[in-house]
Formats: sequence, C-alpha cells, structure tokens
Amino acid sequence: MTLSDDFSYELIATCAETGARRGRFHTPHGPVDTPAFMPVGTKATVKGITPDVLEVIGSQMVLANTYHLHLRPGEDVVSELGGLHRFMGWNGPILTDSGGFQVFSLKHLTKVTEHGAVLRSVVDGDPVLLNPESVIDIERALGADVIMAFDHCPSDPTNRAEVEAATGRTHRWLDRCVEHFRSQDSPHGPQALFGICQGGAFEDLRRRSVDAVVAHDLPGYAIGGVSVGEDRESVRSAVAAAAPHLPADKPRYLMGVGTPQDFFLAVSEGVDLFDCVTPTRHGRNHQAYTPIGRINLRNQRWARDGAPLDGDCDCPVCQRFSRAYIRHLCTTGEMLAGVLLSIHNVRYFHRMMERMRAAIEGGTFVALREEILGAIQRTTA
Amino acid sequence: MTLSDDFSYELIATCAETGARRGRFHTPHGPVDTPAFMPVGTKATVKGITPDVLEVIGSQMVLANTYHLHLRPGEDVVSELGGLHRFMGWNGPILTDSGGFQVFSLKHLTKVTEHGAVLRSVVDGDPVLLNPESVIDIERALGADVIMAFDHCPSDPTNRAEVEAATGRTHRWLDRCVEHFRSQDSPHGPQALFGICQGGAFEDLRRRSVDAVVAHDLPGYAIGGVSVGEDRESVRSAVAAAAPHLPADKPRYLMGVGTPQDFFLAVSEGVDLFDCVTPTRHGRNHQAYTPIGRINLRNQRWARDGAPLDGDCDCPVCQRFSRAYIRHLCTTGEMLAGVLLSIHNVRYFHRMMERMRAAIEGGTFVALREEILGAIQRTTA
Repeated sequence: MTLSDDFSYELIATCAETGARRGRFHTPHGPVDTPAFMPVGTKATVKGITPDVLEVIGSQMVLANTYHLHLRPGEDVVSELGGLHRFMGWNGPILTDSGGFQVFSLKHLTKVTEHGAVLRSVVDGDPVLLNPESVIDIERALGADVIMAFDHCPSDPTNRAEVEAATGRTHRWLDRCVEHFRSQDSPHGPQALFGICQGGAFEDLRRRSVDAVVAHDLPGYAIGGVSVGEDRESVRSAVAAAAPHLPADKPRYLMGVGTPQDFFLAVSEGVDLFDCVTPTRHGRNHQAYTPIGRINLRNQRWARDGAPLDGDCDCPVCQRFSRAYIRHLCTTGEMLAGVLLSIHNVRYFHRMMERMRAAIEGGTFVALREEILGAIQRTTA
Repeated sequence: MTLSDDFSYELIATCAETGARRGRFHTPHGPVDTPAFMPVGTKATVKGITPDVLEVIGSQMVLANTYHLHLRPGEDVVSELGGLHRFMGWNGPILTDSGGFQVFSLKHLTKVTEHGAVLRSVVDGDPVLLNPESVIDIERALGADVIMAFDHCPSDPTNRAEVEAATGRTHRWLDRCVEHFRSQDSPHGPQALFGICQGGAFEDLRRRSVDAVVAHDLPGYAIGGVSVGEDRESVRSAVAAAAPHLPADKPRYLMGVGTPQDFFLAVSEGVDLFDCVTPTRHGRNHQAYTPIGRINLRNQRWARDGAPLDGDCDCPVCQRFSRAYIRHLCTTGEMLAGVLLSIHNVRYFHRMMERMRAAIEGGTFVALREEILGAIQRTTA
C-alpha cells in the first residue's frame, strides 16, 4: 500500500510471462479489484441498469461524464443534492471523465485554443467553455472519487504534427489542472486526480508523454487517445509504449477500451482499469456477448431457442430467461429487451475480468488469453 | 376453502359497513391476497420491470394478453418453451385476458359475427380469427393459471340495443368457451376458466348477465365492459349492479380498472381483483402516483428536490433516489426514468391494496376510504 490514506494501489500478484498484474485499487468508497471493467454512466446512470443490479453483477466502480453532467442537470444541482454518489444512488467508487473525449468526439462543435475548448452544447447550442480550471471546478462539485485531468485528444492519431501539438498542450493543461486541483478543497470528500498521457500512434511521443505526466506525483495515470478509429496493431503499440513505463505502484487506466481482445492485449502490458460503452450500447441494439461472439437477438434463429444467452454465465438474466424470450422482447420493441441485454453484457465483461484476475493469481494468464482469443478468432474466421 | 383442489377462494374478513372483503385466492402457482392489483404484462412482460423486482414490490399475480401473444411470438412458441410461466420467468400466478378487449379497443380493425371476431393483425395486417374455441385453444397453449372467456364488449355502454346484443352474444360465447374448455386437457397444468358478465351501464342488463354467467359453475367471475370511457357514476352503478350478486365463494374480478378512486368504489361492492396499465403507462410518460396526486417529473419544480417521489413509500426507488435525480433522467431521455417510475407506481397500487386489506381486517375500511378519497379530492379540487 502506497500513496495517501485515501487512495492506494495494492499489488496482489503478477504474471511471470507478461506484464499482467492482479491488484486492488483502494478508494474512499471501497476497493476495486483489478484488472477491472468500469461500466459507463455518462449522465449519472448506466443506461437501463439500476445500481442494485450493478452491485449484483459485480460492478465496483462506475464512470460518469463531466461535460454531460455540466450541461444537465448542472454540477451545482448535483453538489447541492450531496454529490454524485448520493445523486445517482451509487455508494461505490465513481470516476468522472473530464470532457476531453467530448472535445474529440464532438469536434465539429468545438474550437480548441491554448486557453481551452469552446464546445457548442448538444442540448441548446450555447457555447460551453471547458479548460483545465473549469473542468476541475466541475469535477470538484460533482465529487467523484477519481477525477480525470482535462486533456487534448488529437483528432487523427496518425498525423504526427497534430499529435505532437495536442500532446504538448495536454502536458501544459495537466500542469494547470494539478495547480488548480491543489488550490482547492473538495466539498464531497477526498478525490484523486489522474493524469492522462497522449501521443497517438507514435511510440516516441507516447514515451515522452508518459515522462511528462508522471513528473506529477499523482495517485493514478491514464492512457488516452487510444481506440479512436485506428487499427488494433496501433492500439497495441501505443499501449505497449506507455503502460509498462507508468509507475508500478499506481493504477493504470486505458480509457474507452473496448473489446475482449483489447482487454487481453492491454492487461498483458500491465493495464488495470478499463471503461467502454459497448456492453450497454450493444445491449440496447439487441446484441449479446457470448463465448461464440456477439449474437444479434433479433435473428429468427433464436425464435425457439430455450437456452440462456450464455450457458456459462451466472448473471440474473441467464438464470431466468431464454434466448427465445429475449428475442420476443426485441421483436416486439419491449424496453426490457435492452435492459436484460445490457445487464448480461456488463456481467460478461466483469466475468472476463474475474477470470483474468484468477488466472493471474493462478499463473495461468497466458493459457486463458490463448483460450479466449482462440475462441474469438475461430468464431470470427 | 371451496371449489377444486387447484383453485379456491378463502374469505378472511369482511367489512361490517360495506361489501368489502379480505380474502385469498389460491392457485397452483401460489396465493393471491385480495383485494389485489395485478400488473399488466400484455406481451409477457410488465413493461420495464423484471420479475425479481415485481416480487420485491409485492406483485403476486400478473396479466398477459391472448391476442398479442398469439400474434407474437405465437402460442406454439410459448408452449414449446414450457408455457407462459417459464417463458416470461414468472413463477407466480398468471391470468390471460381473452382478446375480447382488443375486439373493442381495435374495433376499427375488427368485424364481429356470431361465429367470432376477425381482427386485422396490428403487426402485419393479416386477418386473425378470435372466437370462443380459438381463444380457449390459445389460452390452453399459453398455460396461464386463470384464463378468461371470450366475451363481446359493446363499443358504446350507453346504447341499450347494442349492449343487449353484445351481452346475449357474450352468454352464447361463454357456453361455447365452457364446452370447449371442458373437452380439452391443459398441456401446462391446471387452469381456471373465468366467465365475464357484460351489460354496459344498464343495471337490469348487468343483473341478467350475472345470472347467465353464474349459471356456469366456474372458479371465478369477472365484470367486463366497465371503464371504457363512461363517467365514474356509470362505473359505480354497473359495479354495484353486478358485484354483490356474484357468488360469495368465488373471486370477483373487475377488468381494466383503474384508479385509486375506482378501487375503493369497487372494493366497497365486494370486488377482489383488479388490473390496469396505468401505473406502467404513466411511469413511461414520466408521471408518478403520490399521496398528493399524480405528479409530472419533467416539471422544473422538482429540479432540486432531494425528497423521494413519496415519503411514505417503501419501494426500492423511493429508498434510493430523489425527485431531482428522476427528473434528470426524464429530461435527458434516459430509459431508467420509465423503469424507476413504473416500479414506484406499481408499488403504489400494491400498497393501496395492502392498506385496504389491513383496514378490512382491522374494521377501519370506511375510515381509510374517507382518508384516501378526501386527500385525492383536496389535491384535484
């Protein structure tokens, strides 16, 4: 156990053949067993899943989004109502993304300068200023356990000039975030500021960015700007250039990633934390993760299939409902379809992480990786 | 305890001042404490609420719909998968409505003759024949505990000629339902056929219909054709003309009703069972039942309100979330808004029934009725 009393990373086991590590990230709202998947609750709700079900399916830490909550309901409302934990009825750890990703994903609505980024509101078109100081102010008011620094994610990770400029700006913005963060008290209890390294698909820029970011002694670090449309080999090389060089006594978070394949790739390089909207988004689109790949529940093929979505799954959906029933809910447009598929998919991601944690402890991580990736390759071949 | 081994009505207490009674309806899938509200799961799902949550909030018996399940997924699919209980993951009692109400509500798509009704499918426009024999066949295959006879609900309850014709037809159709029902085995365990009396807003036709329907010795009886647009006084007089004359040793079910006011009115006449789509429909439309009436959660008024929907409510939603949070979910279009409001609203109806049952047992039913109806009158005045 290192760091402050409030946040620490405990290393429990390492893989002898890869960089994979099994640990535990301690926060004021409880521990997070790593490697961990964090479901995304952009607007302070993991879409369609109540917090008590999240607990049942093994979620320990969830995300929320600074930009979206700033627009609605506003951080002042959340703060007045006791902060994000109380507001969304989730007493476990929460992480707020900084809005840096929205600057990237909403780039058609955004103008970035050294001072910060001006976005058009997705609600009413009004200009919204996000800069290191305003983002820290919003995240302080929201009161998540972990708050992300405001970074600049380059729009094309393969354009070296653009990546270099955005990475330098990310470092200068981190300086401002750290200074502003340390100048303030938190209204809702202790918070950890995580720095984000950029560097696009360039190994040397990734290494340089890691050095600049870890120059600040922070309770955790993230790898940003990955999985923004580039191919898997670029993801792999970006993660390999960054993750192993982040401090071993702090949690490492790969932002916005992604798929079971990506998890194995990144955990092998020593990544601890992941988030992605895919399990809930695919769930709402009537797709289920299974050991034979993603299946579309609207398919006629499942119309009389009495088996659960995944025979190996222990989630409440697989314990109670058949593929045929869920297909019926999908084809009749029932809202329970998206709810049930989202629950199953999030549990699928958590089970994948649980299996990785057990395998790292048991010395069988490489065998598990080969088994899972082999099965995925066979079904997608 | 009377009737067969499989279905019986147990009388526990009666009100000295009204016809209200506290009882228990025993079915092969467990008991139903009456007066009871049955949530509506038209397409084999109570919209947005998982069965485990239904159990938590006190649902004992749920409805499903013959016509809609015939269209999708088809009773053959449900039967092949083990019947409705297994299909929808609900092991408590289930009642299937016969499709008679859809003949009424989809009358622009329907042609009724003595033989039966031909509806246009709401899915693909194909003709669908519903008659006493086909409806019993479908309900046998679905396998609910209680199955409703196929009746003819007149389109205008105040048009005497029309009501008289539809009521006579309902009686002839009941004869055919009973004969067909008794000629068959059930593939999924014992079933109880309930007869439905009609008679519109006419007391003499209601009385005559009760006599015709109870001429068949059935395990339960329903009052149909009520709450189809007429005023509350017409509802009251129709219920008063029918309910007290139904056999005291069988459950009495008032179909499709309705509101807290209607519940008190009908329970006072000795009605035991109710169903209505309002708690889930209003929930999806962002309205919550509360002791001060129905409130619209989109209203700016709740934006910073940290109180639960209903301070007296013991539902999981009121235990965990504020009005401000639920308003946030509503205004941002989050699906959890409809889910949470539906859960609360169904629990609100169940709590109303629980309070009635306790009051009947405790001899305070009239006082409770005055308290609740008085509060509603004050808030709607």
